[in-house]
Amino acid sequence: MDIIKVRAVSRTAAVAGAIAGVMREQKHAEVQAIGAGAVNQAVKAIVLARTFLTQDGIDVVCIPEFVNIEIEDKIRTAIKFVVEPR
Amino acid sequence: MDIIKVRAVSRTAAVAGAIAGVMREQKHAEVQAIGAGAVNQAVKAIVLARTFLTQDGIDVVCIPEFVNIEIEDKIRTAIKFVVEPR
Repeated sequence: MDIIKVRAVSRTAAVAGAIAGVMREQKHAEVQAIGAGAVNQAVKAIVLARTFLTQDGIDVVCIPEFVNIEIEDKIRTAIKFVVEPR
Repeated sequence: MDIIKVRAVSRTAAVAGAIAGVMREQKHAEVQAIGAGAVNQAVKAIVLARTFLTQDGIDVVCIPEFVNIEIEDKIRTAIKFVVEPR
């Protein structure tokens, strides 16, 4: 499954649309962000995606986790939000 | 119920301990943050609180929402994370 990667400059509505689309199709989405700006964008996108999905009768929750990922030979800690139906 | 307010300079472990304590007692916690730094701290604290609570056999999820709050006569948009058992 593809992980939705969010950056600090990502557009909230675009990320929210991606999350809602994946949730409708797969009933499970994963959203990854590194750094405060990206984490904030990811959270805002999840709030907006919840609004979209509630209109479709899908009530979602999220589970945040730490994940270590390698970028340019350095290990960085990202936040992964697992989005699932309640 | 008291809302756990998180700031960008809040200590992750202290906030996580507060979330875990409220969850053990009330099975419901609310965590509020304004701004990217505070939202990031809140998310990190929720990840850590999940670790604490999993050790107690409590599996939690979170539901992020926008809330408008008034600070010094100005309306600001905060993120409120509702933390609940799965």
